Amino acid sequence: MALARELARFAADLAFERIPPEVVASVRLRALDILGIALAASTGETAPALRGALEGWTAGQGGPCTVVGTKLGAPAPLAALANGALAHGLDFDDTHAASITHASAVVLPTVLALGEASGVDGRRVVTAAVAGLEAITRLGMAAPGAFHARGWHATAVCGAFAATLAAGRLEGLDADRLAAALGVAGSLASGVLEFLEDGSWVKRLHPGWAAHSGIVAAGLARGGFTGPATILDGRFGFYRTFLGVEPDPAPFRTLGTEWETLRIGFKPYPCCHYNHAYLDCALALRHAHGLTPEAIAAVECRVPAGEVPIVCEPREAKLRPRTPYDAQFSLAYSVAAALVDGRVGLDTYAPARIADERVLALAARVTHAVDPDSRFPDGFPGWVRVRLRDGRVLEAREPDGRGGARRPIEPQAVVAKFRDNAARALPPPAVARVEAAAQALDALADVGSLMRLTRA
Amino acid sequence: MALARELARFAADLAFERIPPEVVASVRLRALDILGIALAASTGETAPALRGALEGWTAGQGGPCTVVGTKLGAPAPLAALANGALAHGLDFDDTHAASITHASAVVLPTVLALGEASGVDGRRVVTAAVAGLEAITRLGMAAPGAFHARGWHATAVCGAFAATLAAGRLEGLDADRLAAALGVAGSLASGVLEFLEDGSWVKRLHPGWAAHSGIVAAGLARGGFTGPATILDGRFGFYRTFLGVEPDPAPFRTLGTEWETLRIGFKPYPCCHYNHAYLDCALALRHAHGLTPEAIAAVECRVPAGEVPIVCEPREAKLRPRTPYDAQFSLAYSVAAALVDGRVGLDTYAPARIADERVLALAARVTHAVDPDSRFPDGFPGWVRVRLRDGRVLEAREPDGRGGARRPIEPQAVVAKFRDNAARALPPPAVARVEAAAQALDALADVGSLMRLTRA
Repeated sequence: MALARELARFAADLAFERIPPEVVASVRLRALDILGIALAASTGETAPALRGALEGWTAGQGGPCTVVGTKLGAPAPLAALANGALAHGLDFDDTHAASITHASAVVLPTVLALGEASGVDGRRVVTAAVAGLEAITRLGMAAPGAFHARGWHATAVCGAFAATLAAGRLEGLDADRLAAALGVAGSLASGVLEFLEDGSWVKRLHPGWAAHSGIVAAGLARGGFTGPATILDGRFGFYRTFLGVEPDPAPFRTLGTEWETLRIGFKPYPCCHYNHAYLDCALALRHAHGLTPEAIAAVECRVPAGEVPIVCEPREAKLRPRTPYDAQFSLAYSVAAALVDGRVGLDTYAPARIADERVLALAARVTHAVDPDSRFPDGFPGWVRVRLRDGRVLEAREPDGRGGARRPIEPQAVVAKFRDNAARALPPPAVARVEAAAQALDALADVGSLMRLTRA
Repeated sequence: MALARELARFAADLAFERIPPEVVASVRLRALDILGIALAASTGETAPALRGALEGWTAGQGGPCTVVGTKLGAPAPLAALANGALAHGLDFDDTHAASITHASAVVLPTVLALGEASGVDGRRVVTAAVAGLEAITRLGMAAPGAFHARGWHATAVCGAFAATLAAGRLEGLDADRLAAALGVAGSLASGVLEFLEDGSWVKRLHPGWAAHSGIVAAGLARGGFTGPATILDGRFGFYRTFLGVEPDPAPFRTLGTEWETLRIGFKPYPCCHYNHAYLDCALALRHAHGLTPEAIAAVECRVPAGEVPIVCEPREAKLRPRTPYDAQFSLAYSVAAALVDGRVGLDTYAPARIADERVLALAARVTHAVDPDSRFPDGFPGWVRVRLRDGRVLEAREPDGRGGARRPIEPQAVVAKFRDNAARALPPPAVARVEAAAQALDALADVGSLMRLTRA
């Protein structure tokens, strides 16, 4: 069977009752996480451009869907575009390691916008979200590492299909219509890595564009618009056209029996997931030994070769980040800031903070060497060695960052993260109301009630 | 200079007064052609799905821009999506051969929607259109034939950049903002050829999606959203990521000195441009010799290798088209219908017509062989040999289809085509009003006045 038909069949047949409770709980927590990040991002540097564009397009006529952290209403595709961009806007959203995709920033904005537009209940929204989350992970795993190697952002391009499946499931399309919608999605999927060259913002847009594309594809298919069900494995299909390879069908065989949603890691730190285990190591050493930056002669990081081009090079730019975005993708800056501050949060990457000479001086003493024994990308490890001026050498290693599938964090840690994030945009009573509604997502009679609480 | 900066500089500096009068006249005629096709398509099979999706998304709240042939209003990006899809919905819109792009179906819906949203005058709309038309042709010519060979629809992917440049020029962005907008567009550009495998409708959507993407990219850049100016020639840029090749910068060097807009061919027949010269040949032979299908033993077409996968294969599907779309992309069906009917028009590809056994029986006697000497894609030639049952062999060749740059048609032929098309959706007085306004495009004080005349 064509892979798009397998996805369509899985999504059409998925019933809330057959989703394991821990998967439902995971989606609730992901909704909370995504809304918190989007709220925090709604006070950030990209938000005015997003708001301005939406205001211009709708000419004050608004629309039925909430744009998180604003008073604006917008048509569902445009609201999902903005909310998805905000959800990924701080590099603080979750990551599925085996597919290297940011799953929730694509899928949750899709189903929440469309759910609000149609006044859909929480069970249907959760079911649609699971369809999308299980899809994006398989789509990435079908060509592991190949998207990034060719210059594609897997989140963006696999995300268009996942959002389409989630949107179509939410709209109640049957398997044939879902397959047609996926066929349309293949001509909407986009997102390249060129932003890495100058630290520009486009990556932030990618999950929003995928969400937007999914709502468009599903909306067209709903009315009978046709698309090829061979879109994934056909002659001019997604994998051959985008990558020049045939997709590995194996990941699709576990749809409905294994739940990749449970393997999507939450991020404790707002930066590239490759940095995370190093931050765990640096913070552990600082706390255990009461380190001060002045006491540190040098910091050495052992890094998987595959991570070096992303978080260590070009070294000049990584040691003195030009933008907060550069800093989030700098291992040296991130580790130095962790050692100076004893914590890593959104303030670590504030525009003013990245010019702090105390952090930059320590960052200049952070070096990296390739770890030839790394099992990356099967896990994103950390390995930090600190040489003190008094001659002592301290070392810490972690197989994976906290929050990843191998080192899960407690739900309460995600809730605490949400509270911190949401408080940047909403007063405390409103934060508590959003938290309560998101934590009861599958019990809501209309998810619009949750979304309207995020207006600011 | 980065190629995106060259495009941005050209567009920012372009002044209406410096555009040759024949280029302005060409844009007027293209606006007329595109609106006529969109009006005809608004009565066709894809229109209900497009209308239904728009109505769902805007929830009756409408928007400031006309959706051609409807009473709907929509935000500019969504109106451009629908109008671009309608403009290409009949495969009747113009083609630039050297880039293999359908230029006007992308660019005109972009500038007309955005012009209506902002109440912009006709000179500004024409100037923005020229920026877009000159851009899409160069983007395709920078990698001739490579997009289709890899599975991309050049109109779709090059179109996103062209629409962005046109939209940004219309919004008055400076060269730096235009380059950023193009950087964003690189992550919105999409469109694959897999629709060829089942005759589904996605191709029709491509110019609309490109127009939509362009308005989104320009709207975000207007508010300060950043994107890489290295998007065309960078390490993870458009040509390397999509094609694995470096772009040829030569076509960009003629921006502002040569006007590719004048080399965009109008289509006399509503089908793939590859079929056009064959139809000219078949109709000429039929008229010269009074051929009847029963007298014809076999029809042999000599076809450039690059056209075979598009209009000749898979042979089974091409001989008995499953959908009107299949038929439009079938050389055998199209030539057979021309020989049976003595003419080719929209009715040639009506759903009922493609089941006509008289046509299908002749189509089964149409074969193709590769012409090893073809200079394709430098021209889309035709070469038809008809073997009659009485033993005679008749032959006709054309270097290019009528309407192409080498065999231009009179403006009056485009006007007649418009009248036929528009009459499918509007009463005669309304057709005349649209014609008069489009033919005076650059003199309009507000292009919205033209667009509102196309509501039905």
